[in-house]
Amino acid sequence: MPEDIKSVSIQAIVLAAGASSRFKTDRTKMAEKICGREMILYPTSILASLDIPILMVVGYQKNLVEEIVAREFKENISFIHQVEQRGTGHAIQCTRSAWKADDILIMNGDMPLVTTDIIQKLYKKHSTSDAVISFVTAHHCDPNAMYGRVIQADDNIQIIEAKELDGNLEEHCCINAGIYLLKRSFLEQFIDTLKVNKEGKEWYITDLVKIASDNKLKVETLSAAYDRIRGVNDFKELWAVEQIKKSEIIQYWMAQGVRFTIAHNVHIDWDVQIGKGSTIESGVQLTEGAKIGFDVTVGANSSLKNCSIGDRTSLRSHTVIHDSIVKNDCKIGPFSFIHGHSILENESIVGSFVEINRSSMGERSKARHNSYIGDTEVGKGAYLGAGLVTCNYDGFTKHKTTIKNNAFIGGNNTIVPPVTIHEYAMTAAGSTITQDVPTNAFAIARQHQINKEGYAKTIRERNEQQAQKKNSTLSSIFMGATKIDQSHEQL
Amino acid sequence: MPEDIKSVSIQAIVLAAGASSRFKTDRTKMAEKICGREMILYPTSILASLDIPILMVVGYQKNLVEEIVAREFKENISFIHQVEQRGTGHAIQCTRSAWKADDILIMNGDMPLVTTDIIQKLYKKHSTSDAVISFVTAHHCDPNAMYGRVIQADDNIQIIEAKELDGNLEEHCCINAGIYLLKRSFLEQFIDTLKVNKEGKEWYITDLVKIASDNKLKVETLSAAYDRIRGVNDFKELWAVEQIKKSEIIQYWMAQGVRFTIAHNVHIDWDVQIGKGSTIESGVQLTEGAKIGFDVTVGANSSLKNCSIGDRTSLRSHTVIHDSIVKNDCKIGPFSFIHGHSILENESIVGSFVEINRSSMGERSKARHNSYIGDTEVGKGAYLGAGLVTCNYDGFTKHKTTIKNNAFIGGNNTIVPPVTIHEYAMTAAGSTITQDVPTNAFAIARQHQINKEGYAKTIRERNEQQAQKKNSTLSSIFMGATKIDQSHEQL
Amino acid sequence: MPEDIKSVSIQAIVLAAGASSRFKTDRTKMAEKICGREMILYPTSILASLDIPILMVVGYQKNLVEEIVAREFKENISFIHQVEQRGTGHAIQCTRSAWKADDILIMNGDMPLVTTDIIQKLYKKHSTSDAVISFVTAHHCDPNAMYGRVIQADDNIQIIEAKELDGNLEEHCCINAGIYLLKRSFLEQFIDTLKVNKEGKEWYITDLVKIASDNKLKVETLSAAYDRIRGVNDFKELWAVEQIKKSEIIQYWMAQGVRFTIAHNVHIDWDVQIGKGSTIESGVQLTEGAKIGFDVTVGANSSLKNCSIGDRTSLRSHTVIHDSIVKNDCKIGPFSFIHGHSILENESIVGSFVEINRSSMGERSKARHNSYIGDTEVGKGAYLGAGLVTCNYDGFTKHKTTIKNNAFIGGNNTIVPPVTIHEYAMTAAGSTITQDVPTNAFAIARQHQINKEGYAKTIRERNEQQAQKKNSTLSSIFMGATKIDQSHEQL
Repeated sequence: MPEDIKSVSIQAIVLAAGASSRFKTDRTKMAEKICGREMILYPTSILASLDIPILMVVGYQKNLVEEIVAREFKENISFIHQVEQRGTGHAIQCTRSAWKADDILIMNGDMPLVTTDIIQKLYKKHSTSDAVISFVTAHHCDPNAMYGRVIQADDNIQIIEAKELDGNLEEHCCINAGIYLLKRSFLEQFIDTLKVNKEGKEWYITDLVKIASDNKLKVETLSAAYDRIRGVNDFKELWAVEQIKKSEIIQYWMAQGVRFTIAHNVHIDWDVQIGKGSTIESGVQLTEGAKIGFDVTVGANSSLKNCSIGDRTSLRSHTVIHDSIVKNDCKIGPFSFIHGHSILENESIVGSFVEINRSSMGERSKARHNSYIGDTEVGKGAYLGAGLVTCNYDGFTKHKTTIKNNAFIGGNNTIVPPVTIHEYAMTAAGSTITQDVPTNAFAIARQHQINKEGYAKTIRERNEQQAQKKNSTLSSIFMGATKIDQSHEQL
Repeated sequence: MPEDIKSVSIQAIVLAAGASSRFKTDRTKMAEKICGREMILYPTSILASLDIPILMVVGYQKNLVEEIVAREFKENISFIHQVEQRGTGHAIQCTRSAWKADDILIMNGDMPLVTTDIIQKLYKKHSTSDAVISFVTAHHCDPNAMYGRVIQADDNIQIIEAKELDGNLEEHCCINAGIYLLKRSFLEQFIDTLKVNKEGKEWYITDLVKIASDNKLKVETLSAAYDRIRGVNDFKELWAVEQIKKSEIIQYWMAQGVRFTIAHNVHIDWDVQIGKGSTIESGVQLTEGAKIGFDVTVGANSSLKNCSIGDRTSLRSHTVIHDSIVKNDCKIGPFSFIHGHSILENESIVGSFVEINRSSMGERSKARHNSYIGDTEVGKGAYLGAGLVTCNYDGFTKHKTTIKNNAFIGGNNTIVPPVTIHEYAMTAAGSTITQDVPTNAFAIARQHQINKEGYAKTIRERNEQQAQKKNSTLSSIFMGATKIDQSHEQL
Repeated sequence: MPEDIKSVSIQAIVLAAGASSRFKTDRTKMAEKICGREMILYPTSILASLDIPILMVVGYQKNLVEEIVAREFKENISFIHQVEQRGTGHAIQCTRSAWKADDILIMNGDMPLVTTDIIQKLYKKHSTSDAVISFVTAHHCDPNAMYGRVIQADDNIQIIEAKELDGNLEEHCCINAGIYLLKRSFLEQFIDTLKVNKEGKEWYITDLVKIASDNKLKVETLSAAYDRIRGVNDFKELWAVEQIKKSEIIQYWMAQGVRFTIAHNVHIDWDVQIGKGSTIESGVQLTEGAKIGFDVTVGANSSLKNCSIGDRTSLRSHTVIHDSIVKNDCKIGPFSFIHGHSILENESIVGSFVEINRSSMGERSKARHNSYIGDTEVGKGAYLGAGLVTCNYDGFTKHKTTIKNNAFIGGNNTIVPPVTIHEYAMTAAGSTITQDVPTNAFAIARQHQINKEGYAKTIRERNEQQAQKKNSTLSSIFMGATKIDQSHEQL
């Protein structure tokens, strides 16, 4: 027996054609993401890591499934179309012309927690025992679980589908995981002897176990932990599987020196990276390959998606960063929103209620409060006062604002681009800047203040008279109550 | 025996008079909400669904309890006032004059997880066995749990209150759930034989079990799952019960095709509705009948209360929507706050740090950044630039802003209503709009920009001189440190 | 035997010198916080509450450990430097010159869940049995757990370190907790007989158990719950311990009349205080001694740090309050950020996207929408319109704004301090206020509106022509895609 599964003649058939009806959505479950990765990619990547070529049986939404798989796997994979969904036995028959290896591995596409270890152990047991069919079992005592039950008596072994089992499901806790390794010669000899099921609609691959057993051919089983072979047939099972996957990811990062304050409360994708010494607070979302450096704090209830956060940067609570780069030693949040491929250089500061969109901030630049900064390039050491609005969109085109090194933008400014505020320039608070401001210049674009003595009193007295009658009619001007009708029954 | 409980002569007494002292608040626990519904309404609705007329014994905060119940139940319910809290036996005695049916069902008001199934099974057992008293038991081995213990020996059965039991509570795991079905004739005959308890303060309904048993009258028990009959006597028990109820609600919606990314992390009320294909992300609050359409995404940490969200609408993280309607294909958030019976028509877009209050947005209208929009009616296809402030309140009266179809409001505008921006009108960035803008007109209300060459340098030099002395004194002007005194002991 | 441990001659050695290598960070684990308190302070405070003087053995990052401990404990504690980390036995030898009491208690510094009860019971068992060494054990069947195993056979008892145990760790579930009470006389007699371990690098205190046993000297054990004696060697163990501690804190507050809607979802520090009748919603962070009054609602996903919240105040969701005081009957949020030692007096209102920094708000004052209020003193009954920006920083110095009682600030105002708006003064919407406004005066600082008829149409037509070519080139001006390279392997 070859030691290494990679050197042997083996090929895999992955079953991914089913209609996913128990999900109640209009999508194939193969496309549902678990920790940010489509379900079908989990078994596929396990097989690929073992260099096992894959035949994937597709049917329902086959284009979508093929597209997802092809995104990650360019070779060693081919697709076979099962036009009608007539059971696992029928699916295997569809692949017949492609059988080449000595051993054929068959597994369901909806088993995201299977490890290479299980496949390797199954192969070892199969090859050392000279079995014609070897399959994975698990112990699981749930009468509602629709796994096939493994029934063993004397020398005979068979798998009976849950819905066809006579008797009490509760008493049958040995379940069929849905991973089989068969000799090709056996498969070729017996595949045509499969009989249609009771309903006359489906052929079951599982019947091959009884066929082998009845023919006194060797059948082997490998027992695996139920948590590793869980199938996913509805959103509840998806949730359970995702929690296990997530728990593994988080424990991995904990072991790398990352602190999670409420680990069960964090959403994390499979392709996220976190440096040691970092803290991930409660309620954080880390998705789509978010990359976090060393000694970073990600404050509670923040969301990071497809972004890179530099070392020692501090993200306070309620920070949202998408598709952007924040470098080292920055201070962001709370309530910052950075997106649109923005870049924040080292030591920049972005504060509360500030949105940065398609913009860059130079080193040590600051935008602390209530601002919208879009399509803007900010140099080093610039200070953007509270309430800044860059009017990057004129209804037709996006225009660019440039704020050079060490410029100072006064509070509540409105900038109408295209415009450049040059180095060391300043703008007066409350200004609307429509033209370039030269280096060292001071721009002002606001009206002088006039105080009308006693006039507030006049207004107040007038308003007080008018207020009473007006208030009594105003409430009916606007939209009426929107209390929604509830035909929903008590659960 | 009649097959259907609805056709028999039965009436229910619900005990809702207790003082809820272990909650430590000044409210009756009957008014505490579980998944958005007051506790007392759970058993009441179970009985009502079985057409069983209810006598409710009220005492502590009786007006509040009656008001809550009367909100949902107009008929088949009457209230009896137990003036002094002298035990369950005393409570039943208070209802004597209202006994009419052949069988009297008695249950506690603080059992929110009881199902119709338990009541129906109890009735079936009671009626087929000809018992004079039948009651529900459960297995629960917690010596700290203050349930009465069911003690059975030879032919005798009795319930002993936990605080009056001699011996080790740990050894008595059969508990009295607090649901009894009695023949009225038995009750009439023996109610007056109840004796006061050891402390001389209370009469226990549970003593009737021993009385029946001693008189060789038939007593029946029905065993139920502890999780279904849990009582609620403090906030810890309330939390446990609410988690179970919430779990049922979420599993119900999962089965309807709704994805929850971190289900245990979501708060959901009993009367919420969600369409299939929708995703509810982590940390979301769905309350007070929030209604969510098909294929909607509710982003992480959003709060939806008494609102309706249309199909395919996308709510990004940190979105708060209260008492409002958002229609189909809208894009909202992150950090949007929509409330005050606002209406957003199809395909409207509301972005970050935007508050919409008592306003409507027409189809395809956009308010993307940092704005306050109050008492405003926006037409179709309008664009509201970043930083818009509608000054709807003058200190006395609320005034209305009207923005017509396809109007374009420049960045950082201030609108002083009552004012109308007509169709296809535009306003210049930084303007304060105090008068109507006609169709196709361009309104401008801002000062021209003046650049003072070199003046920024002058200011900077002056400020640098002043800054040092000023900074050294400024910090003492404002409020001193507020570090709170900690007399709190370590837990 | 003295009844009270406080009256006996006992001293404690706390082991806090280890390198914390499994944490993978560059910090000593003794400084990691559990519910807001550094780990080393938990055992220290237990010993201090029993009046037991402490010798703390420090080594790795000793200055940091000493500093943390000295912050809470001024007396009855001294530090001994273990220069090289050569095992627990070696650590004890280092303390030799300081042994004074009749009994020496030894415990690890990384046991944050130990209670006074365990120490007292250990002392009682030790003193009544006349043992030379007594130690705490627990039942824990995890072969991966690196606790020493307690091996008992006939009269002999010994502790074998997990890594030195021959045979199957799974079969040895009696673990050594790491708390020992020894007679000083025994310690003095036998400490020098400890032998170096197999690797020749460390001496184990645990070998003293076998030495005592071999010498027929009395050894006692006290069995404790594993959850009480858990050690903390990595972030996963830290997480587990923190969840237990947090659960105790939350259950304590539940018993005091506080409702937690999703308790497992809340982060709470050991020194937080909450009044009865208050509700803590899901996803809330309560840290650094946050103090919350009666009947307060803390809305979902809010963060309160080192602050005081008055009675009946309502904090809506997404409220962040740091280092500030909010008094009674206030309404705050959603999306408010209050910090910088700000003070909000009774009945003040702060709304969405409002930041209050180093400022005070008088009674019944309101700042409802999208404002930055910094270094500002607001009187009673003042109204601050939406979009207010106080320009407290001129690039060099912070300046102070004063808004007196009953002043009314119009929408989208810019205030350039130092400036005072006097009582009953008003400012016009859209104004930039640079000078004081006298009592009852009305200040206006904005330009009149001009409507250019038909000009919006002209602009639109011009822009439509330009838009097409411009848009096609603009997208390449800004930063390209930032999709991060993923070399991260599948978990």
